[in-house]
Amino acid sequence: MKRYQREDEISYSLGITLTFELLKYATEYCNRVYVHSKMDKGESFEKLKKLCDDANIPMEFADKPFNILSQKENCFIIGEFRKFKRPVDKNESHVVLNNPSNAGNMGTIMRSAAGFGITNLVIISPAVDEFDPKTVRASMGAIFRLNISVYPSFDEYRKQMGDRSYYPFMLKAKTSLSKLEPVKPFSLIFGNEATGLPDSFLEVGTSVIIPHSDRIDSLNLPIAASIALYEATKNDFTK
Amino acid sequence: MKRYQREDEISYSLGITLTFELLKYATEYCNRVYVHSKMDKGESFEKLKKLCDDANIPMEFADKPFNILSQKENCFIIGEFRKFKRPVDKNESHVVLNNPSNAGNMGTIMRSAAGFGITNLVIISPAVDEFDPKTVRASMGAIFRLNISVYPSFDEYRKQMGDRSYYPFMLKAKTSLSKLEPVKPFSLIFGNEATGLPDSFLEVGTSVIIPHSDRIDSLNLPIAASIALYEATKNDFTK
Repeated sequence: MKRYQREDEISYSLGITLTFELLKYATEYCNRVYVHSKMDKGESFEKLKKLCDDANIPMEFADKPFNILSQKENCFIIGEFRKFKRPVDKNESHVVLNNPSNAGNMGTIMRSAAGFGITNLVIISPAVDEFDPKTVRASMGAIFRLNISVYPSFDEYRKQMGDRSYYPFMLKAKTSLSKLEPVKPFSLIFGNEATGLPDSFLEVGTSVIIPHSDRIDSLNLPIAASIALYEATKNDFTK
Repeated sequence: MKRYQREDEISYSLGITLTFELLKYATEYCNRVYVHSKMDKGESFEKLKKLCDDANIPMEFADKPFNILSQKENCFIIGEFRKFKRPVDKNESHVVLNNPSNAGNMGTIMRSAAGFGITNLVIISPAVDEFDPKTVRASMGAIFRLNISVYPSFDEYRKQMGDRSYYPFMLKAKTSLSKLEPVKPFSLIFGNEATGLPDSFLEVGTSVIIPHSDRIDSLNLPIAASIALYEATKNDFTK
């Protein structure tokens, strides 16, 4: 057993809340669940044990994995899972992250996307590791409900997907988000935290700007993405 | 010189970008600027020096403050400022944070609020320290553009402000954000990260929910606040 590395075929859910999400939504990819000796054997544990038993997932009682994998003192459950390949659905709407560089941001966007019912995530390389335990943690487990595809370039992604609504979000865009009437299936496209999307995206579909004051340069990436997700899906959830 | 503590009357902007914001928007509260020996004396430094000279703010060349105040290796400029008292404007719209507990979240909300042109922030105690260097950093300097008032209770705040539109954001609310037509001046009210707003806020003004799927329990606090800010101000910025 060693520290997590990107090239590994497995990753980890650190903590009981994340591990519940893993067991519920990506059961078939879970190899085992580690239990620390300090884990309280109360109601939550019994629930977890039942989920493991029902799915024939072994529980291993050992403290060593926690020393190696977790920096947090109050982490007493770790789930080990095989990195899953569930490609995005061509007929559904997508969130597309072009060269994202921060694991926490990527996880936060996963959480918001699931929250707004968009469960297909496209990542354009180079990008931060979508299975890094830090990403998993920031997603609050939403990663286990998503289809995820990684493409080597945006052009390659577009070639595979063909005709759909592409909405790149950029400060130079002409269309205001508040005037947009998104046509499904759509792709909401966001650039890197520091550099945004290159100007070439002005020629891709309909470029969109989030109206805001000139007092700040731009919104942070998970916030911009979440506002876009809210606006693009609000008619789906409003009675 | 010692580490920052909440009861201190001064706080710090760690890094050159934050210190530029301090010098531009809260000039009169800046006591001094510390310069590390590794600071590159190029164009940015000359700009900073001019701002200090014009405002009669001393520059002190010393490395020791950096060892005490900053954990980051690439921080070569620190601004020292007196905690300012600029109460919120009764005639303007407010963001109200009821018992916020995380400095990073508070700073991120400051950044979004300034971004959407809402420059009045109300904090209901108990709450995290609004002048903690971590809050200042997360705000990206937006804190220096804000009026901020702290109240001991929401009732006290409401008594002082009187008639205005109160919009508490809660999962139990009846009105969907997408149907809301906010009347100015308004107060967008958000609860604690873990517990949200108490049920008693259902009786305060018009309670609002952000429409989203039931796949996640709730959105994270800075994201919920930013979506509300976007929706409540979008007509201000759209031509």
